[in-house]
Amino acid sequence: MIEDNMLEVECTSLTPDTVLRTSGHVEKFADLMVKDSVTNAAYRVDHLLKEWFKAQLEKKETTAEQRAEYESHLARLDDYKEPDFEKLFKKYNLKAPDTGNPLTEILPFNLMFATAIGPTGDTPGFLRPETAQGMFVNFRRLLDFNGGKLPFAAAQIGLAFRNEIAPRAGLLRVREFTMAEIEHFVNPNNKKHPKFKSMCELTVPLFSRKLQTDEAEPVLMKLGDAVSAGIINNETLAYFMGRTYMFLTAIGIHKDKLRFRQHMNNEMAHYACDCWDAEIKSSYDWVECVGIADRACYDLHVHQDKSKVNLTAYEDFPEGPKMVTMLEVKPMPKAISPKHAKATGGIITAINAANQEQLKKMKAELETLAKTHITADNQQYELVPAMITISEVTKRVTGETFLPSVIEPSFGIGRIIYSLLEHSYNCRPDDAQRGYLSLPPIIAPYKVSVLPLVSNDQILDIIPKITSILASHGLSHKVDSTGQSIGRRYARTDEIGIPFGITIDYATLQDNTVTMRERDSCSQIRISITEVAPLLDQLCSGQVSWKDVWNNPKFPHVEAAKD
Amino acid sequence: MIEDNMLEVECTSLTPDTVLRTSGHVEKFADLMVKDSVTNAAYRVDHLLKEWFKAQLEKKETTAEQRAEYESHLARLDDYKEPDFEKLFKKYNLKAPDTGNPLTEILPFNLMFATAIGPTGDTPGFLRPETAQGMFVNFRRLLDFNGGKLPFAAAQIGLAFRNEIAPRAGLLRVREFTMAEIEHFVNPNNKKHPKFKSMCELTVPLFSRKLQTDEAEPVLMKLGDAVSAGIINNETLAYFMGRTYMFLTAIGIHKDKLRFRQHMNNEMAHYACDCWDAEIKSSYDWVECVGIADRACYDLHVHQDKSKVNLTAYEDFPEGPKMVTMLEVKPMPKAISPKHAKATGGIITAINAANQEQLKKMKAELETLAKTHITADNQQYELVPAMITISEVTKRVTGETFLPSVIEPSFGIGRIIYSLLEHSYNCRPDDAQRGYLSLPPIIAPYKVSVLPLVSNDQILDIIPKITSILASHGLSHKVDSTGQSIGRRYARTDEIGIPFGITIDYATLQDNTVTMRERDSCSQIRISITEVAPLLDQLCSGQVSWKDVWNNPKFPHVEAAKD
Repeated sequence: MIEDNMLEVECTSLTPDTVLRTSGHVEKFADLMVKDSVTNAAYRVDHLLKEWFKAQLEKKETTAEQRAEYESHLARLDDYKEPDFEKLFKKYNLKAPDTGNPLTEILPFNLMFATAIGPTGDTPGFLRPETAQGMFVNFRRLLDFNGGKLPFAAAQIGLAFRNEIAPRAGLLRVREFTMAEIEHFVNPNNKKHPKFKSMCELTVPLFSRKLQTDEAEPVLMKLGDAVSAGIINNETLAYFMGRTYMFLTAIGIHKDKLRFRQHMNNEMAHYACDCWDAEIKSSYDWVECVGIADRACYDLHVHQDKSKVNLTAYEDFPEGPKMVTMLEVKPMPKAISPKHAKATGGIITAINAANQEQLKKMKAELETLAKTHITADNQQYELVPAMITISEVTKRVTGETFLPSVIEPSFGIGRIIYSLLEHSYNCRPDDAQRGYLSLPPIIAPYKVSVLPLVSNDQILDIIPKITSILASHGLSHKVDSTGQSIGRRYARTDEIGIPFGITIDYATLQDNTVTMRERDSCSQIRISITEVAPLLDQLCSGQVSWKDVWNNPKFPHVEAAKD
Repeated sequence: MIEDNMLEVECTSLTPDTVLRTSGHVEKFADLMVKDSVTNAAYRVDHLLKEWFKAQLEKKETTAEQRAEYESHLARLDDYKEPDFEKLFKKYNLKAPDTGNPLTEILPFNLMFATAIGPTGDTPGFLRPETAQGMFVNFRRLLDFNGGKLPFAAAQIGLAFRNEIAPRAGLLRVREFTMAEIEHFVNPNNKKHPKFKSMCELTVPLFSRKLQTDEAEPVLMKLGDAVSAGIINNETLAYFMGRTYMFLTAIGIHKDKLRFRQHMNNEMAHYACDCWDAEIKSSYDWVECVGIADRACYDLHVHQDKSKVNLTAYEDFPEGPKMVTMLEVKPMPKAISPKHAKATGGIITAINAANQEQLKKMKAELETLAKTHITADNQQYELVPAMITISEVTKRVTGETFLPSVIEPSFGIGRIIYSLLEHSYNCRPDDAQRGYLSLPPIIAPYKVSVLPLVSNDQILDIIPKITSILASHGLSHKVDSTGQSIGRRYARTDEIGIPFGITIDYATLQDNTVTMRERDSCSQIRISITEVAPLLDQLCSGQVSWKDVWNNPKFPHVEAAKD
């Protein structure tokens, strides 16, 4: 966030009905479900069908013809709408899988958790299904805080809630989860990104619409080339794809289990320009963990319409002032008032507020029909040529007013962490029972373990001295002074991914040195107590690697004890 | 958290009904309200009465006798229960203050937001009103993670939701807010704290129960003395009061606007041993911002009872093994089975699970009545002396099993931030219009502003070089390159509490130095660009103060420009 000077905000989870009605969530944020007509158990229509088809395909008695039919449905399941599902349920006479009972009709189930705000019970609200809306409704304040300048991004890390019909797959589909969302606001006519230069040589695996249609594999491509070739819609989108790639690989996601898949046209909302999902492969196959979408100006548009708060921004033309030919309008109050009496004020305001498109239409009507209309205060009024002059003028214009587009990288933190745990899980080559978690030091929850080799009072006395130094450096640590073997204790710290361990032994009492061990290589060096915390600082911030430490002649190597 | 090796957790906000029913929240977490019988507007009973009494006291026509009566009610308002309120509403014939309409009967309003979890609508849930319950229901796993050792603390920062009848007072009473709660689990027989030594010389303002009853003022007292004198119940409670005091004053809360007020006996829950609120004075008077309570074993007790999960811990006696006289039981299956047939297995299990108290009762019954009873699988069975032997034995016991007590410091983050903003707001002595926010560097959201003195291309080119160094050090910064006067730009950064500012000028082009200004003193030094970020690192982590910088001959002083 600091790198791109984003404006971090924290909006509420409880959201008034009107916000989510305006955004379209109250009407459309639903999954289709059917219920067991006896037990009331609910099933997601697409999940139920998918599992039924898969079960049929596994049966021996399924004919080749049926097999082809089921496979064709499976492939198109994501495109099916409610009537398609209804036909399939009837055709195959589907029953509740757990009981064999008849199913209810298909009904949409809104995924938002509803509640009542305040004591009267008449103010409905929902738990937000995404953090984005808070940033859209606060856009005016964010823009003002940024001195009216574009582009800029707002960012928010927080909870989102979705009342899933069937939570499943561990952390992958849960009802309450942490999202990190960025809303980057740009001029729709200029989606270049000032820092794209630093990103255009980065090579990432792209699975474009075309490759998907062709049933081909993803290809490695430089982001700069992908933008030039029109595969990625614009620089800003590509910049955030690059940042996402760098972030995910830095925290330990395997490069060969990461790809960017472009949304097919039928997957995207009608207003979206382009959308790429960072997908991570785990035992649940490829799973969407980050969505990076160009949502155009849809969100600001609907909120501006509903709230009547001006959400436009202004920018000077980058190439300097321009001579622009435009229509200018002049209402004639003296001609309007005899006809429209008290409405005159409202009509004049409406005429002055008309945009270029409206003026063009009115001008044409006046010229061809000798009359036109204007809507003021929800009523239509007739205007004749005497009441209004619309003329073409050429003016020096320094910039433009527009509704910004928004490019939204949206991170599902739980899904990323789940994938990371799978990617980080390893076994020692000599012992498949000995699992360890190779979390990079920068994200490991505990940075270092502190293990006394012997339970001797003098040695135990050193522990608080070491832990207080670690604490003062903000280094999280775990002490294990149980009398168990050092191998067993290392195994326990390895299992929870602690990257470094220090052991205190009799020699520590003599020369104030300890042994430091690195988790993945199990290699060990000897280091003085005073140097431990500063070195861990550097290791955990990525300034030095263990390899650097290992190659530094200052630190003697220590052979690992057999246990 | 790292300092005390706390186990940080993140539990869900959505909470199943059963958890909050067990904790007592479904039944008791309510405020009393009345409604306007016409408009349905809701009022909190205590707030409405308080305001009515205050209004009467301000009226000239109120007699001295009435005045005394109203004042006496006001003083006791916090102690009143539903019947007391009912009497007062009838006696004074209270009406809805906004409309004069009659009021409804008094009714309790549960402050939790209710929702339905899942698609069937038959699984009720609530948004948590505090984060604590998640740590209690996960206690077994936390204890296991800590190797079964006590004392230890769990900590959680997260949202809590309370459907306040009347949110008010800015950030002080809102419906969704961030809490930071610590649950420190200890042996109820040993509430000493290993680090208390480091805290006992700290002097804090204490407003004990006795001082409150005596209508005296808070007194300054050393924490060690307060524990010795029995004013604070135990070391652990006092340790966290000390940590709270150090935290609040470090982030900028004024020492003379902070006190610890002990709960009166009628304020505390019946199970609590002792409770102290850190109260901060603001324009809303003294407000509770942190509560530090010894809740005994109440929470673990109710959850263990309901869930049947063993939530006890074991500890060796600190003074070593003891010889303990206890009752030992031996069931006689051969005598039981002829009488109780298939139930025998259950009866034997129940007999072996009986605790000392139950055994004592059974032994007495067997001796006096020659029979006793046991409950197994929800049914009672008679036992005669032949079926069971209960005898007194003396054994060597190394430790004890117990339900831990919990000491809970609970921070209301919004209230602390609000108080901090009030305490940090200052005006320049020469200009009351020029407000600035003296947020300490360690918590200021922006650490430094970057201001070019002239809008010259060469100078503007230096900005991204500086900001990229700042970003790589994780230093949040705000660039203001509008052409406005430097005084105006400083005023703007002062208003939002940016502690340091650097200006770039023509001299920067020559010698790579910039001017650095400190917000509170407005004093300025000259420093080379390469030294800026490391110095800011030290200033913002508290390793050096601005005074140290000012007194360092290495940095030439710069006279502030008049604007």
